[in-house]
Amino acid sequence: MLYSFTNDYSEGCHPNILQRLTDSNLTQQPGYGNDEFSQESVAAIRALCGKPDLEVHLVAGGTLANLIVLSAFLKSYESVICAETGHINNHEAGAIEATGHKIETVATPDGKLRPEDIRPLINKFPEYHTVKPRIVYISNSTEIGTIYHRQELVELSHFCRQNNLLLYLDGARLAMALSAQSNDLTLADIASLTDIFYLGATKCGGLIGEAIVMGNEALRKDFKYFIKQRGALMAKGRLFGIQFAELLRDNLMFDLGAHANASAQRIAQRLQELGFTFLTQSETNQIFPVLPDALIQELSKTYGFFVWKKMQEGYSAIRIITSWATPAEYVDQFLQDATALAKKAK
Amino acid sequence: MLYSFTNDYSEGCHPNILQRLTDSNLTQQPGYGNDEFSQESVAAIRALCGKPDLEVHLVAGGTLANLIVLSAFLKSYESVICAETGHINNHEAGAIEATGHKIETVATPDGKLRPEDIRPLINKFPEYHTVKPRIVYISNSTEIGTIYHRQELVELSHFCRQNNLLLYLDGARLAMALSAQSNDLTLADIASLTDIFYLGATKCGGLIGEAIVMGNEALRKDFKYFIKQRGALMAKGRLFGIQFAELLRDNLMFDLGAHANASAQRIAQRLQELGFTFLTQSETNQIFPVLPDALIQELSKTYGFFVWKKMQEGYSAIRIITSWATPAEYVDQFLQDATALAKKAK
Amino acid sequence: MLYSFTNDYSEGCHPNILQRLTDSNLTQQPGYGNDEFSQESVAAIRALCGKPDLEVHLVAGGTLANLIVLSAFLKSYESVICAETGHINNHEAGAIEATGHKIETVATPDGKLRPEDIRPLINKFPEYHTVKPRIVYISNSTEIGTIYHRQELVELSHFCRQNNLLLYLDGARLAMALSAQSNDLTLADIASLTDIFYLGATKCGGLIGEAIVMGNEALRKDFKYFIKQRGALMAKGRLFGIQFAELLRDNLMFDLGAHANASAQRIAQRLQELGFTFLTQSETNQIFPVLPDALIQELSKTYGFFVWKKMQEGYSAIRIITSWATPAEYVDQFLQDATALAKKAK
Amino acid sequence: MLYSFTNDYSEGCHPNILQRLTDSNLTQQPGYGNDEFSQESVAAIRALCGKPDLEVHLVAGGTLANLIVLSAFLKSYESVICAETGHINNHEAGAIEATGHKIETVATPDGKLRPEDIRPLINKFPEYHTVKPRIVYISNSTEIGTIYHRQELVELSHFCRQNNLLLYLDGARLAMALSAQSNDLTLADIASLTDIFYLGATKCGGLIGEAIVMGNEALRKDFKYFIKQRGALMAKGRLFGIQFAELLRDNLMFDLGAHANASAQRIAQRLQELGFTFLTQSETNQIFPVLPDALIQELSKTYGFFVWKKMQEGYSAIRIITSWATPAEYVDQFLQDATALAKKAK
Repeated sequence: MLYSFTNDYSEGCHPNILQRLTDSNLTQQPGYGNDEFSQESVAAIRALCGKPDLEVHLVAGGTLANLIVLSAFLKSYESVICAETGHINNHEAGAIEATGHKIETVATPDGKLRPEDIRPLINKFPEYHTVKPRIVYISNSTEIGTIYHRQELVELSHFCRQNNLLLYLDGARLAMALSAQSNDLTLADIASLTDIFYLGATKCGGLIGEAIVMGNEALRKDFKYFIKQRGALMAKGRLFGIQFAELLRDNLMFDLGAHANASAQRIAQRLQELGFTFLTQSETNQIFPVLPDALIQELSKTYGFFVWKKMQEGYSAIRIITSWATPAEYVDQFLQDATALAKKAK
Repeated sequence: MLYSFTNDYSEGCHPNILQRLTDSNLTQQPGYGNDEFSQESVAAIRALCGKPDLEVHLVAGGTLANLIVLSAFLKSYESVICAETGHINNHEAGAIEATGHKIETVATPDGKLRPEDIRPLINKFPEYHTVKPRIVYISNSTEIGTIYHRQELVELSHFCRQNNLLLYLDGARLAMALSAQSNDLTLADIASLTDIFYLGATKCGGLIGEAIVMGNEALRKDFKYFIKQRGALMAKGRLFGIQFAELLRDNLMFDLGAHANASAQRIAQRLQELGFTFLTQSETNQIFPVLPDALIQELSKTYGFFVWKKMQEGYSAIRIITSWATPAEYVDQFLQDATALAKKAK
Repeated sequence: MLYSFTNDYSEGCHPNILQRLTDSNLTQQPGYGNDEFSQESVAAIRALCGKPDLEVHLVAGGTLANLIVLSAFLKSYESVICAETGHINNHEAGAIEATGHKIETVATPDGKLRPEDIRPLINKFPEYHTVKPRIVYISNSTEIGTIYHRQELVELSHFCRQNNLLLYLDGARLAMALSAQSNDLTLADIASLTDIFYLGATKCGGLIGEAIVMGNEALRKDFKYFIKQRGALMAKGRLFGIQFAELLRDNLMFDLGAHANASAQRIAQRLQELGFTFLTQSETNQIFPVLPDALIQELSKTYGFFVWKKMQEGYSAIRIITSWATPAEYVDQFLQDATALAKKAK
Repeated sequence: MLYSFTNDYSEGCHPNILQRLTDSNLTQQPGYGNDEFSQESVAAIRALCGKPDLEVHLVAGGTLANLIVLSAFLKSYESVICAETGHINNHEAGAIEATGHKIETVATPDGKLRPEDIRPLINKFPEYHTVKPRIVYISNSTEIGTIYHRQELVELSHFCRQNNLLLYLDGARLAMALSAQSNDLTLADIASLTDIFYLGATKCGGLIGEAIVMGNEALRKDFKYFIKQRGALMAKGRLFGIQFAELLRDNLMFDLGAHANASAQRIAQRLQELGFTFLTQSETNQIFPVLPDALIQELSKTYGFFVWKKMQEGYSAIRIITSWATPAEYVDQFLQDATALAKKAK
């Protein structure tokens, strides 16, 4: 296989991180997130969000962040609402339910939630026989590559606050969302429009680590107990601290996100020129072109990708993902090969 | 502060790990533990245990390993038995109970469990009104520095098998236990005498990572679901794989454990020569000397350590921990300072 | 209000139960289900099911039965599949999720599940990222009044056994289902085609109590621990025992079910004659006629019922439920009033 | 067997309850605790407690009450403290842990808790690595027959309020406690000194039912969701309502408690006169005399009781329990037989 477009975590991490790990290796540091690198990364997030008192916690992965946050802020009879495509609903092996909470889902065409999607789920009758929604979970970018724009997030945030709902944003690929071409949101917007979000490093240039950022002051008390109890308080917090300290210096994480987006969008554009359609209108580093099965089979001899869904007779949607590390030459080669194969097929 | 003996996770990791991370950084690898480095570390553990079919899973931390294993193999009415000093009982913020299970404890003088400690807890009357013990949890080395010897583990293992109890060993500091002076156990013994154990890297030369090793074949089915569900299946498994691949090459982890033990035992020996006693009979890298409060106060001006427990009037036990990275010169300096201060005090 | 058709638990219980409670009141009995009345009711269920070794347990209510059974037989990563209308999905305030398990739902037009509804949910890709279905939950009669016929249950049972799925039947209104006009199932069929079911007394002539019946021998071990742990093991099991002992003597429970059905079906027939349609094709004691809002308002001055759903402009579906105790004269009066009001409206 | 002193739930219930059930049987009532009998019993409890706005909920059993209350008011990292003899610790099959919470226990000689028992468990170091105590659980009468006096409860209540701990009282046998000879507490005291308690009917003249009484207003919001979610919201709440309505009329429940106490104390007094000692100093309906094994064997031919604990060579403690229904003639006969057998043995 020449190159795998199967996911955005196939490579290691940005070299700056490895360099800093090496340089600081023998410095003694306090454990459990009290090290100077974690403090540095917290300061960087606070600065980017324009909130000097934000509470920030670094944990190992996205499922862990999701289950800690949701179980911390839901009472046992309260539910979380998400899109049917939501990661917590499909790809966390029941992690949220295992902490005792129901996920209520809404089918939406683009993987995004709007107030009108949520309204029917609140004030359900009859009281105390049904669960009571308390958190709205969204992803940006979504699981199918779409992004939220400022006005959408403002409306959703407003609706949630009016209806006593917390808004939680899963930012596993927030670096890609915020560096997408049509994006008009900043990290500071995210921090002020949501109650909590996490900013992911694993898929955006880091080796490991997601930063849980708590904009809503009312939620902060004793949060570290929840982290410890779910097994997420790491002795050597320096490992996470260094990821974020480096990725947040000089806009690095967002530049890497832009690189990943640009690579995927280059592929999307050429496939569109070749006359192919897409399952979703993605602006980020995940695209879902609908291709003839014969072409898919030929491409799969040289490239890795995921066959996502059977479509009309003889066609399937595939998922192509690019990463912070995807080399331009492999994208070039893929485009050349796809073009040649598509033309031959005609 | 000249040097901190507060814990064994103050420094980073053995340089071999950083080198390998750097060398392999841009190699594309499958995610979720299917990378070649994880496979290499699994092979190394199988070889050390002499069992070519062992199932091994790498996770981020000890509390995570404990809660995954215990919740996977306990039915809701089944309990885990541990010593009162057990990490799961004291220092995991209720992680095990949060997965729905009762911990039953036994007070033991040395932090170790023997069959006679467990016997009273099984066959409790009346049936179905009480929990039913199913797993015995032990730590080696224990939370207070002691270790199990071969005969003790054989007897405990035999007792558990006779009584339909699973034996689980928390090996956060197993490298220290197996490199202690009087140790007569091998990793292969551990694998065959327990049903499951974990081998810790975080405190023994790694940055992050614990290897769950499942000797009991009956337990293996679908175990990866439990790992995913608790948020412990990391996208970039290569990070964990490289820790163990490097630490298990050429006995490195156990040599590092021996270094940590030797450093602590040098301190213990001198303190004993100075006439001080100890709270527990440790052979490993955690020692608990009982010192005059005045001496403790003087030492704390230069060195970091934890004041563990008030003892007789004017005395306290402190905890001194050394690590794989503790430099000989700081141990020398500490001994010199302690000797001088102790003599001055007389 | 002349009479309430709001639910089938507005009245007390069949007088035989009160008589037996009174007659036996001062007899000393062992606790926790070991009393002679519980044993008598177990024997009656075994006889009706034609299985002399069936395990049977009596608990207070349906939600309690559901949460005990589902949490007992699901591993933490396993899910239960049900129809979107399923009681566990809508009206148990997240009781199943609170025990740590995901419910996967399927939209079906009649509240019933068929193999083709379930097939897409099994063998989901990718393994260990998603939950794994293990139990199929059905209700008979369903939450919208429909019933399963023999061939349907045979096919579903066969499919479940082929696919390593347990089949669990919620029989809150099983007495009504088995006494419906087109029913061709017996209690013995239910016991052999499902792995577990519960037979409800609360809505079928009793004051309290549901009987969990475990046809599948493999599930029986230690089941009483689960009952105790969920707070469902009652000291005075005699109360539940007497309910079932009396209701299962001489077919009483099923005669009461037939009475409830006949009362509702009399109403349904007249409303149909008056030209009204129904939301669901119910054969049992719950009917959902679609009526003009003006008529609904008039009827609600004299009768209790639940307005279920807005339909086309000016119409709503209401839910009318009759019970074992519904007096014929109130049904007559309702029919007379509805007829008069409907005619006046024309 | 002539008579069983094995427990206090061998007989049915006070005849007034059966009469009222019969008289009201066909009255239609709303479900889920909204019936007039439940309202009547709530009013009676409010009147006895002197608090017209108390929130009261009726549930089926004590374990159910305990698990609902404790899981409702503990965050996942918070613990409940109880005496080692506490019912929740020993005889609920891990019900509390199954809802995700740790129980921390204290050994006390008389089954009662005092501020000095609790103090060492709060402010544990280090923060967020250990659970955080939040509820103190006590029983009155205790599991070994002792009772709390006013001054003790005042001190405990004061301590809890000073330390941000909720005080919860398990009143399975509160009727016995409040009718014991040296008792100086009223139900109003209990309501004002605790945050929550439950008043049990099952062991004090009822068939089934415990009343959860919430003195602390801050805890009331949405409590019915917790009841529903744990399967404890019964469709025919009238059954519970009638128990309490009848038992609380004209002091009936406490008169029945006094009868039970007097029966046991008559036995205790005679056994003491015969020179026997007791395991605990009980004033209520559970006594634990230490008798020669030969005498125990003789008595067990005619009477039922539980052999509690082996004592010095040739002696065991037995548990004798009397109930609201224990007939005086069986107590007389027991005393006569015990006296004769004891004298013969000398």
